[in-house]
Amino acid sequence: MKIYIAGAGAMGCRFGVQLSEAGNDVTLLDNWEAHIDAIKKDGLKVVGDEEKTVHLPIMKPTEAEGEGDLIILFTKAMQLRQMLQDIKPIVGSKTRVFCLLNGLGHEDVMKEYIPATNILMGVTVWTASLKEPGVVLMQGKGAINLQAIDASQEASGREVTDILNGAGLNATYDMDVIPSIWRKACVNGTMNSGCALLDCTIGELFASESGLKVVREIIHEFVSVGLAEGVTLDEDDITNYVMEISVKAAPHYPSMHQDLVKNHRLTEIDYLNGAVSEKAKRLGISTPYCQMMTQLIHTKEDIFGIK
Amino acid sequence: MKIYIAGAGAMGCRFGVQLSEAGNDVTLLDNWEAHIDAIKKDGLKVVGDEEKTVHLPIMKPTEAEGEGDLIILFTKAMQLRQMLQDIKPIVGSKTRVFCLLNGLGHEDVMKEYIPATNILMGVTVWTASLKEPGVVLMQGKGAINLQAIDASQEASGREVTDILNGAGLNATYDMDVIPSIWRKACVNGTMNSGCALLDCTIGELFASESGLKVVREIIHEFVSVGLAEGVTLDEDDITNYVMEISVKAAPHYPSMHQDLVKNHRLTEIDYLNGAVSEKAKRLGISTPYCQMMTQLIHTKEDIFGIK
Repeated sequence: MKIYIAGAGAMGCRFGVQLSEAGNDVTLLDNWEAHIDAIKKDGLKVVGDEEKTVHLPIMKPTEAEGEGDLIILFTKAMQLRQMLQDIKPIVGSKTRVFCLLNGLGHEDVMKEYIPATNILMGVTVWTASLKEPGVVLMQGKGAINLQAIDASQEASGREVTDILNGAGLNATYDMDVIPSIWRKACVNGTMNSGCALLDCTIGELFASESGLKVVREIIHEFVSVGLAEGVTLDEDDITNYVMEISVKAAPHYPSMHQDLVKNHRLTEIDYLNGAVSEKAKRLGISTPYCQMMTQLIHTKEDIFGIK
Repeated sequence: MKIYIAGAGAMGCRFGVQLSEAGNDVTLLDNWEAHIDAIKKDGLKVVGDEEKTVHLPIMKPTEAEGEGDLIILFTKAMQLRQMLQDIKPIVGSKTRVFCLLNGLGHEDVMKEYIPATNILMGVTVWTASLKEPGVVLMQGKGAINLQAIDASQEASGREVTDILNGAGLNATYDMDVIPSIWRKACVNGTMNSGCALLDCTIGELFASESGLKVVREIIHEFVSVGLAEGVTLDEDDITNYVMEISVKAAPHYPSMHQDLVKNHRLTEIDYLNGAVSEKAKRLGISTPYCQMMTQLIHTKEDIFGIK
């Protein structure tokens, strides 16, 4: 099976490695020159639970040729539209395009470029991180939930599920994946934005009584907007889920902290708290915590001179 | 005239120096050992517009003896109650007690300890900073507005105004000082809390379009609550005032930034955004920006382990 990984950051590399080792024909697509050069020269180095070097083709999205059977989108949220534009030549009538980006609102962007019958939406709790260009850290286990957004395409979605499971990626075909996507967005919209703003670990944020008040308000706003959009969400369940993750991930700085504080890169805030705030405006719901968090993160981006 | 400065930080030292040089019998009261020791040993060193050493008595509040004609309160907001407790022995039936603390809600605390007829409330735009224990930086000019909270005490309030003017402190007896106190609280509730949270200068905060959105929401909430309490406030006037100050003070880190980020000390947030948020709850008004800002600053205090 011909698989493109569109966005070969940490997670894209992990999926690429596992799918390739399962016998698929995998090509990585990315725009980061140093990363491309390192992988072309020395292969992709894997560290963590196993140490190995995997040789995978990597190129810029605009250089790819030949329609894919499956394209897995793993870009940063703000790069999605450009990536969809760039990969047009490799999307054929039978190419499944599977979105695993963090955040909300991607389905609408996907539909502008890809027929609904070819779109799969999903969410994953696998993790990975890049140590440096060409070196990916892979530790622990994860899971994937996915669904074809067009109900007629369930068989096709289940086929992709089997391919992922063949690579040990622990995938489940989910008859209602949207609540899971919101649940993960809620994790990111509390701990990622909070830790980025406050320059702290997840454990530090959640150990503060005041920090927990902010977390609970944000969860409440996410759930209110989700429910108003018809997504099945339970505030207590989501709160418990966020709390569980905060305990497991306590010593860590989430990815938005790395983007904003460490690397001075644009954050995904517009696709998390910002997306909820924008949806809320259209629905006539008040979500001041999501709105203020979005404004504060953007202010911090401005202070760092990030564009 | 026997004057005590209750809280001999930067501003207390400035006022002490000027009032002493005008011929008043001034005693500084403070609890900071290193500061007391330095002033006892070498006098209070003044730097800035003038360089000089001024010898003033300084002691702990509980060590003061003899009723004052005037006591000027210049503590941090959270130290007010303890100071009022400690100075009981020097407050006589004719002692005027003049509150120049930043923030809102101090009048209610004052009334628990001091008869209303003896209380003066005020606000100042004089500035000063402590370079180190015993060394105060005094630059530029300022002004004071003040009022006796009991209308029958106008003559007494005007007498204090004259004493302050005799020391070059540019004081005005104000027939309605409360709006000026709110206006200054609004300056502090936007730039102090914002710059402390975001670790930036006033200019950096106000140069950001997103930062300005946060500032405007906070001003709106301050004004809404003030109006509901019967204080005469105009949102456009206050916004213009805050903007003017932000331009003049652009390169500076406000005092709350110094407290929180630089010195890891408790902030006055509960007497600024927190006071507005608490008043709003009692009035049934929604002030989510003030509430979230208060929670975020407290979270940052928790992260720094400040108690």
